[in-house]
Amino acid sequence: MIDPVFLDTPLYQCDALGRRLGCTVSIKLETANPVRCFKARGTELVAALLAGQGRTAVVCASAGNLGQALGWSGRRRGLDVTVVASHRAPAAKLDRIRALGVELELVDGDFEMARVRAASIAQQRGVRLVEDSLDLETCEGAATIGLELASAAPVFDAVLIALGGGAMATGVGHVLKTLAPDVEVICVQPAGAPAMTRSWHERRVVTTDSADTIADGVAGRYPIPEVLDDLLVVADDAVLVREESIVAGMRMLLESAGLVVEPSAALGVAAVLEDPDRFAGRHVATIICGGNVDLDAYHRWVRT
Amino acid sequence: MIDPVFLDTPLYQCDALGRRLGCTVSIKLETANPVRCFKARGTELVAALLAGQGRTAVVCASAGNLGQALGWSGRRRGLDVTVVASHRAPAAKLDRIRALGVELELVDGDFEMARVRAASIAQQRGVRLVEDSLDLETCEGAATIGLELASAAPVFDAVLIALGGGAMATGVGHVLKTLAPDVEVICVQPAGAPAMTRSWHERRVVTTDSADTIADGVAGRYPIPEVLDDLLVVADDAVLVREESIVAGMRMLLESAGLVVEPSAALGVAAVLEDPDRFAGRHVATIICGGNVDLDAYHRWVRT
Repeated sequence: MIDPVFLDTPLYQCDALGRRLGCTVSIKLETANPVRCFKARGTELVAALLAGQGRTAVVCASAGNLGQALGWSGRRRGLDVTVVASHRAPAAKLDRIRALGVELELVDGDFEMARVRAASIAQQRGVRLVEDSLDLETCEGAATIGLELASAAPVFDAVLIALGGGAMATGVGHVLKTLAPDVEVICVQPAGAPAMTRSWHERRVVTTDSADTIADGVAGRYPIPEVLDDLLVVADDAVLVREESIVAGMRMLLESAGLVVEPSAALGVAAVLEDPDRFAGRHVATIICGGNVDLDAYHRWVRT
Repeated sequence: MIDPVFLDTPLYQCDALGRRLGCTVSIKLETANPVRCFKARGTELVAALLAGQGRTAVVCASAGNLGQALGWSGRRRGLDVTVVASHRAPAAKLDRIRALGVELELVDGDFEMARVRAASIAQQRGVRLVEDSLDLETCEGAATIGLELASAAPVFDAVLIALGGGAMATGVGHVLKTLAPDVEVICVQPAGAPAMTRSWHERRVVTTDSADTIADGVAGRYPIPEVLDDLLVVADDAVLVREESIVAGMRMLLESAGLVVEPSAALGVAAVLEDPDRFAGRHVATIICGGNVDLDAYHRWVRT
C-alpha cells in the first residue's frame, strides 16, 4: 500500500563520517522523497485503509512532518486532510503542509496542545484521528525501515533511532528484534525533551512540564503508555544528548556527508559524539529521518 | 556487476522546486552513495571486468568524481588505482580520492593535461587506461540511470543531462531513445566550457583554448570524436547556460529541495531558469549527478 517512492531508500556507508566518529557509519536516508521525511511510510498505510473504507476526511496533530506526509498521502486518495500544529513549528514545515492543499490550524501552544485540539476536531466532525505512535499504521510504516535495515549485509552492530513519540523506535525496533536480534537498538532523544527516555528508564510514564530543544520533531512531553510498553520490549537503550551535540551532528552531516538535515535527524550522530568509546570500531547505522528545516536557522546552527 | 548501493537511486517529484520553475520537476538523485556521484555505475563495470581478467592496476584522468569512483570500485577488487587530476580540482574531491587509498598525481594544468599524463602513465606501466566517455563501460554505467528513468511512470517530457565528456549524455540518451523515444533528451553545458555543445551544433569536433566555469566536473576542452558521433544520434538538443544560472540553480536546489549539489548537478535547473517558456507545464527530470563540492565555495555561491 506504500508508494514505492518512499521505500528502499538509500543505505550506504559514509567513510568520511566514520573517520570523524571513529566507527563505521551507515546512513539510512529518508529525506530523498516528496515529503523529505520517513513519515509517509505510515501515512500511506493510513490513507489507503481510509480510502478503502470509503472515508473522506482525516485529521492529525503534527510537529510538522506527519502533517506533510498525511497531506501527501491523503490528498492523492481524495481525502480532506486537516492538520493541527503549534504556531512555533518551523515555517518551512508549515508552508509545505499548506502547499499540499491541507487545512492547517495553528494552536497557541506546543505539540501537546495540538494533540488535544486535533482530538477535539476529530470528535466534533466524526472523522478519523491519526495519532502518531499510538496508531499501529504509523509504527508499521516506520517498521518498513527496519525491514530494509534487517535485510542489509553486513549486519550492523547498532542502529541509532531518533526518539520522539516512539513510532519509529517501536516500529524499527520490533522488526530488528525479530529478524536481527543481535543488533543493538538505541533510541536517542534530546536532553531538553527527555520524557520518553526517562519513562523508558523508570519503566513508567514520566511527563515533563516543558520541552526545550531545537529538535522540534521529537519535542513531546506526554509519552503514550501503550507506546512505552512496546518500547520497553524492543529498545536496548535510550540515551539523551545535549543541544550542542545535535548542532555538531548537523554540521558533521553537512561537512562529511553533504546532507542538510533537520535537528532530529542528527540525534544518532550526536549520540556517537557524546560516547565515542561505546561505538569505537563498531558498525552503526543511523536513520536520517527528516530534512525539513528552516534554512535561516540551519545556517546559524552549522556556521562554525 | 554494479554494487546495488549505486543502483535504483531516488527518483521523485519535487513540488516546491516545480512551483518555482513553472513545470513539474522530478529529481534523479545520484549523490546518496559512498562516492556522492553517478560515476561508480561505470567504474563498477570497469573494475569488475579488469579483476575478472586478472589485472592488478588501472589508471585514469579525473576532474575529481571519476577518480573517487574508480578508487572505490578498484580498491574493493584489489586493484592498484592511479588517478591523475588537475591541481585546480576541488580540494574536497582530491581529499576523498586520497582517502580511498588511491595514488593521486596532480598536474600543473587543467583536465585535458591530466588526460595526457594519465595516458602516458598507462603506456609506461602497461596498465589499463580508463578513458571517461570513450570507454564503453563508462557510458554503459551511466546508461543504467537511463534504464531507471525509462521504467518510471509517468514518462517524462524531457530529461536534462549535464554534458561534459559525454558519458552520461550518450549512455542515458541511448537508453531513452531506444525505450522511450518520445522523451526529449536535452544536454546542458556551461557557456564557459562549451566545446561539446558547439561540436554537437556544428556536427564536427570544436575545441576551445580555455574553459572557465565553476562547474569543474564538465570543464573539458577537447571533445572525443567517437563520443560526439554517439551524441549526434541520441541528443535532441544541447544548450549552454550562464554561470549565474548555475549558481541560482544550486541555491534553488538547496532552498526548495534541501540538496547540496556540485555546480554540474545544477545545470538542468539552470537550463529551465534560462528558458522557462520551453518547459512551462511540462514534466522534466533532472539528474543530480554529483554532490562533491568545496563547502567554502558552496557557501559563497548560495549565499543570497
